[in-house]
Amino acid sequence: MSARKFPSRKTAIVGIGATEFSKDSGRTELQLAVEAVKAALDDAGLKPQDVQGLVTFMSDTSIEIEVARNLGIPGLTFFNRTPYGGGGTCATVVLASLAISAGLADVVVCYRAFNERSGHRYGQIMQPQANTQGVLLGWYSTFGLATPASFVAMAARRYMHEHDARSEDFGRIAVACRRHAATNPKAWFYERPITLEEHQASRWIVEPLHLLDCCQESDGGVAFVVTHADRARDMRNKPAYVAAAAQGASEGQEPMTSYSRSDLSSLPEMKAVGSQLWRQSGLGPADIQTAVLYDHFTPFVLMQLEDLGFCERGSAKEFVKNGAIELGGKLPLNPHGGQLGEAYIHGMNGINEAVRQIRGTAVNQIAGASNILVTAGTGLPTSGMILTAEQQ
Amino acid sequence: MSARKFPSRKTAIVGIGATEFSKDSGRTELQLAVEAVKAALDDAGLKPQDVQGLVTFMSDTSIEIEVARNLGIPGLTFFNRTPYGGGGTCATVVLASLAISAGLADVVVCYRAFNERSGHRYGQIMQPQANTQGVLLGWYSTFGLATPASFVAMAARRYMHEHDARSEDFGRIAVACRRHAATNPKAWFYERPITLEEHQASRWIVEPLHLLDCCQESDGGVAFVVTHADRARDMRNKPAYVAAAAQGASEGQEPMTSYSRSDLSSLPEMKAVGSQLWRQSGLGPADIQTAVLYDHFTPFVLMQLEDLGFCERGSAKEFVKNGAIELGGKLPLNPHGGQLGEAYIHGMNGINEAVRQIRGTAVNQIAGASNILVTAGTGLPTSGMILTAEQQ
Repeated sequence: MSARKFPSRKTAIVGIGATEFSKDSGRTELQLAVEAVKAALDDAGLKPQDVQGLVTFMSDTSIEIEVARNLGIPGLTFFNRTPYGGGGTCATVVLASLAISAGLADVVVCYRAFNERSGHRYGQIMQPQANTQGVLLGWYSTFGLATPASFVAMAARRYMHEHDARSEDFGRIAVACRRHAATNPKAWFYERPITLEEHQASRWIVEPLHLLDCCQESDGGVAFVVTHADRARDMRNKPAYVAAAAQGASEGQEPMTSYSRSDLSSLPEMKAVGSQLWRQSGLGPADIQTAVLYDHFTPFVLMQLEDLGFCERGSAKEFVKNGAIELGGKLPLNPHGGQLGEAYIHGMNGINEAVRQIRGTAVNQIAGASNILVTAGTGLPTSGMILTAEQQ
Repeated sequence: MSARKFPSRKTAIVGIGATEFSKDSGRTELQLAVEAVKAALDDAGLKPQDVQGLVTFMSDTSIEIEVARNLGIPGLTFFNRTPYGGGGTCATVVLASLAISAGLADVVVCYRAFNERSGHRYGQIMQPQANTQGVLLGWYSTFGLATPASFVAMAARRYMHEHDARSEDFGRIAVACRRHAATNPKAWFYERPITLEEHQASRWIVEPLHLLDCCQESDGGVAFVVTHADRARDMRNKPAYVAAAAQGASEGQEPMTSYSRSDLSSLPEMKAVGSQLWRQSGLGPADIQTAVLYDHFTPFVLMQLEDLGFCERGSAKEFVKNGAIELGGKLPLNPHGGQLGEAYIHGMNGINEAVRQIRGTAVNQIAGASNILVTAGTGLPTSGMILTAEQQ
C-alpha cells in the first residue's frame, strides 16, 4: 500500500463553530445543528452556498438535507455517516478529507448536535436497538451491565488489577480536565475546579467509577469546516492541516463490551489507530505538544496514553502523577477541559479545541502547539487524527 | 477542482456474492450478511483475513464488527455508512473506492442484508423515526401520504400530466423487467413474465400506481468486494473497474416528498449524479451498453432515462415503447430483472448484475457490454456509478 496514502496535509480545518453548552438547550437538535454549522461557516468566511458536503454521525438526528435546506445549501455531492457513536468523531475528518482530496466536494462541514441531557441521555440504561448491537446487549444486561459506565467498570477493574492502579489514578485525569475547564468561559464547569478529595468523595456510579470519573451529559452542537489545503492557505484563519486521520476496530471487538478478549486493560483498536496516525503523518509521540483524548470515562484515558505510545504500558498513572498532563507539562491533556469539564458533544468540541490550539487562540493556549493529536470514543471501534500547523 | 478527481478506474469490483432471494429467509439478517460477504470473498478468491474495510447502509442491522467477528476478519481500518436507504447503494462504492485509493484499506466489502419481506417491510406505513425525517413525515402522513408508493404517486401523476404519459407507459418498464427476470433462475419471478394487460388489470396500490408498478419485497443479502485496480488485474475474475461513482442531493430535497420544488416530474439529484458520472468517466450516454436503473417504482425509471441523458425530457415513454430497453434494444434495462423481477435488496443486486455483465457471465448477457451505468434509489438523495471493462 506504500504508493497509496491518506492525503496527509492535503486538507485543513478552516472554520469552527458551536452553540453554547448547556443542560437544557430549549430548542430542537436541528436548530442546534444549523446554528453550529452556520457559526463554523461564518468563522471560515464562507457562505452556505459554498458547501457541497455534510458529514455527521449515524446517531445524529438532523439529516443532512434538512440542515442544508434550513441553511440554504443548494445541493450536496457528499453525505455519509460514521457509526459507533463517539467512536466516529475523527472518522468524520477521514470522510471529509477523502471526499475533498478526490474532488467530490470542495467544502465539507462536519457536525454533531444533540440534546443529550434534556432529551435522550446516552448514560442511561441502553435501549437495545433492533440490530446486532442490541443482540449483544442482551448477553450483558441480564448481568446488570446495561449502561456505558457499567461496561467500562469491568475494564477499569482489570486495569487496576494488572497495573496496581487506584481510584486516585483515575481521579487525577478528572482533576486536570476540570482545572483546565475552570479557566474556559465556554465550559460548563467554568470556575468550578475539583480536588482529588472531592473526586474520592463523589458517589459511586459503578465501582470502581465515581461520579467524577464519568463525563457530564450536555446539550449542544459543534461543527467545523474542511477544505483543500490549497484553498485553506488563502482563507482568513490559520489553517489546521490534517496530517493524519484513521479508524480502527480490532479482533474480538464489541461496542463497549469486548470481554472475550484475553486483554481487557488496553485498547487494541486505539493502538491500531495510533500506528496509522504515526505512519500517515511521519510524526511520533514526542512531536505532539498537546493531546485531546476522549474522556467519557477516566480509566480509558490512562489506557490511551499507553496505547498511543505517550508512555509505557502500565506507566500512565506515574506519567499523570508526575504532572505530564497539566498545562506546562510534557503533554497537556484537554486544555479546554475535555468532556469532563467543557461539554460532552461526542468529542467534536475537542476537534475545535485542537484547531484553536493550532491557531494560537485557545483560552489555555499551549506554547508552540503545532502538532495535536485528537481521539474519538474508546471501548468502541474508534478513530483519531493529528492536526498540524505546517503544511510542509 | 480540476486537479483533484475521483479515482476513476483506480479501483475495481473483483468478487460478488449473494444469498438466495426469498420472501422468508428463515434466518437472521446477520446470517444473511455473513453468507453474502463470504460468498463474495470466495468468488474473489480472498479470505476474511484479507479484508480491512466494510461498508453498508445506515439502515442495515448487521454492524460491521459483528460481520467481521462471525467471519474471522481480524480488524478493520475503514467502516462507514451511507444514509437515505436505497439512495446509498452506489455511495457504498464511492466510500470503498476513496478508502482504497487513499491506502486506508486494500480490500473493502460492501454489503446489504435484510428480511425485508418476512421482517420489517419498507413498503408499509412508515414509522416516523425520532429524527428530522420523522418530523417531515408528520407533514404528509396527516394527508394520507405515509408509504413510499403514496409519496411516488404524486410525482407520477405530475409526470403524466406534463408529458401526456399513461399508466401503460409505466407498465412497459415492469413488463420488460419481468421478461428479463423470467430467464434468470436466481430471480424470484423466474419463469413468470407478465403482459401489459396483466399490469393494467393489477390492483391499485395508490393511483396512478398499480401493484405491478411497485417492486416486490424480498429477504436476502448481497455483497461485493472492491480492491485497487493494480491488485485486481492479477485476480481470478475479470475486474469490473469503477469508472465513476457519485452522490447527489438537490435543492428542496426531502426523502421521497420533495413537493415544494417547482418541478415534480424530474429528479434533479439524479441529474447531478449523472453529470458527475459523465465528467469522472469521460463517457456519455451513447457509451453505455446496458443500464441497471433503480426500479422500486416504474415512473421513476422513465424520469431517470431522461435525467441521465439517455433520451430527451418527456420522451422516455417513446424510448421505451420503441423497444430501447429490451434485450437487443439500444439500452437494455436491468437484464437480471431488476428489483421488479429479481429481488429488492436496496439495489445492491443490480451492482452485482453489472459486474456479471462486465465479466460476460450474465444469464441475459448483453453483447459487448463494456460500460454499465447503475443507479441507486430515486426520490431520495441518491448515488450512481459506471463500471467498465477496460482500465485504460
